[in-house]
Amino acid sequence: MAKYCIGIDLGGTFIKFVLVDDQGRPSKTFQLPTPDSLDGMVGQMVAGAKQALKTNGVAVSDALGAGIGSPGPLDLKAGIVLNSPNLPGMTNVPLRDLVSKGLGLPAVLENDANAAAYGEFIAGAGKDATDMVLLTLGTGVGGGAIVDGRLLHGAHGMGAEFGHIVVEPGGRPCGCGQTGCLEQYASATFMARNAARLIQQEGRASSLSEILKRKGEITAKDVNEARRAGDELAAEVWDEMAHYLAMGCVDLCRAFDPDLIVLGGGMTAAGEDLMKPLRKHVSDLWWKMTPQVTRIVIAALGNDAGAIGAAGQAWAAFGPNAPAR
Amino acid sequence: MAKYCIGIDLGGTFIKFVLVDDQGRPSKTFQLPTPDSLDGMVGQMVAGAKQALKTNGVAVSDALGAGIGSPGPLDLKAGIVLNSPNLPGMTNVPLRDLVSKGLGLPAVLENDANAAAYGEFIAGAGKDATDMVLLTLGTGVGGGAIVDGRLLHGAHGMGAEFGHIVVEPGGRPCGCGQTGCLEQYASATFMARNAARLIQQEGRASSLSEILKRKGEITAKDVNEARRAGDELAAEVWDEMAHYLAMGCVDLCRAFDPDLIVLGGGMTAAGEDLMKPLRKHVSDLWWKMTPQVTRIVIAALGNDAGAIGAAGQAWAAFGPNAPAR
Repeated sequence: MAKYCIGIDLGGTFIKFVLVDDQGRPSKTFQLPTPDSLDGMVGQMVAGAKQALKTNGVAVSDALGAGIGSPGPLDLKAGIVLNSPNLPGMTNVPLRDLVSKGLGLPAVLENDANAAAYGEFIAGAGKDATDMVLLTLGTGVGGGAIVDGRLLHGAHGMGAEFGHIVVEPGGRPCGCGQTGCLEQYASATFMARNAARLIQQEGRASSLSEILKRKGEITAKDVNEARRAGDELAAEVWDEMAHYLAMGCVDLCRAFDPDLIVLGGGMTAAGEDLMKPLRKHVSDLWWKMTPQVTRIVIAALGNDAGAIGAAGQAWAAFGPNAPAR
Repeated sequence: MAKYCIGIDLGGTFIKFVLVDDQGRPSKTFQLPTPDSLDGMVGQMVAGAKQALKTNGVAVSDALGAGIGSPGPLDLKAGIVLNSPNLPGMTNVPLRDLVSKGLGLPAVLENDANAAAYGEFIAGAGKDATDMVLLTLGTGVGGGAIVDGRLLHGAHGMGAEFGHIVVEPGGRPCGCGQTGCLEQYASATFMARNAARLIQQEGRASSLSEILKRKGEITAKDVNEARRAGDELAAEVWDEMAHYLAMGCVDLCRAFDPDLIVLGGGMTAAGEDLMKPLRKHVSDLWWKMTPQVTRIVIAALGNDAGAIGAAGQAWAAFGPNAPAR
């Protein structure tokens, strides 16, 4: 009989479920609402996992285990959610063991950004790669890295924090306490906030000022639309974002030399409006030692990547080629 | 019987040899001069490897294979030295197979900076680590990274080029074609050259100007000695080096989250004169999210690291836990 691993992606609003087979092929995903208590959440995760098996006609005895993607910070080795601001009651919770007990299957815990990277690696944009880097351009900039087929965690579970690589020393202050972090320049939120700051604090003229007055804020989509309509400030802010994102991509190529860099998150809705200036800046910043061999592409799995990657990490932990435990 | 792998570190002047046992313990190393022809070099590598076995009383049948560390660029998978400026006749040479044939043992080729990193990892400063980064501060800045026990190569064998991480966008032009590369600020050679430039081109006053006149150049050691004697320009240049090196270290912690960063190369002869300002700058640049858990230390194996790490890579390739090939 074919064997499967279950993937569970725990989010603040929904929990997503999937099965992944031994070839890394995902089933159709589905989601259930996230209950507002810890017991409720664990119960929903167990129920959804069982439903995923049932819907796909898979016996529990043909499931090797479950992978759980969760917002952090986490203690990966202990399987504990240390503290998750968007999930009620989630402080020092042994989530891995609670779900494992409820399911009667072994489980593994993974942070959600890493899970998404691994999902793209096994079933999405990176499925033919050996080495891949993911950048998610959303509220902040999240990251994940696959090195020679395996997810990078770091010695303390804090690797692949690519949003906090410094791309402008002494630059914009970041909430993390550093200055000039990539996410201050290349996240959808902070890029748009910078446009608002230039209008409000530096008195720059822009068609965006009307939106800002009306909505109280500007989104990355607003900036791109204003840019397309010929707004100079919007063009400047958008190009700066592409420049710093390119700088981050080049640094990541020097460090990881990946087959490809995969971009996810809200900003990628801009498609070629993002990729075209990004490619130009990467080309400008690329060294002369070797041609550019790393491709930069938009993620293929959207919001399904986290659940699929969580199942993939269960395969890595419990599959036939798993390291001795 | 105990089993061994042979490590060979090919340099422009000497070839170094070592045996490493299944616990990662190295024998005493020794070196032979590097002949000035390709045939001579291959012959010397084979002869030295046999001598290493004989000296340590190890039968060829108890050797699993040999690892060869070589200056690059290399085609690692094919075992070919593409082009090595400091080794005569080394253009598109299948060095791995030539040595393997001469020895009658399987061999693996590795670039010398990676081999040194792996040597420190198995038998030096990183021997208790799972994740480690090496920076060699010499003529340039070389790098190597171990991720969860395995050497990082990248998809095209060009990973861990940490000397070319950009620490100052739009900064000093680098020979690689980028600007603001770490090696322009933190290598012994370029740091000293910058002191010379400030004296010669910007007319800065310094006690180093006399040395510059006399020798035609300044070394990192000269800069440090002038700094210790109270020279202001030297102090400024030295501190700038420590600042940018710290910036590189912080970026590497964000990306790799290693147990430790190991520093090697000529600059580390300065010992605490290097480490003290470096620690201060790392502390200043460190984020506020988590305490600094990555240690930064000076390499333990000196010039032996490359040969030891090459043998370690032979263990990784041919030992009992080696991946299927």
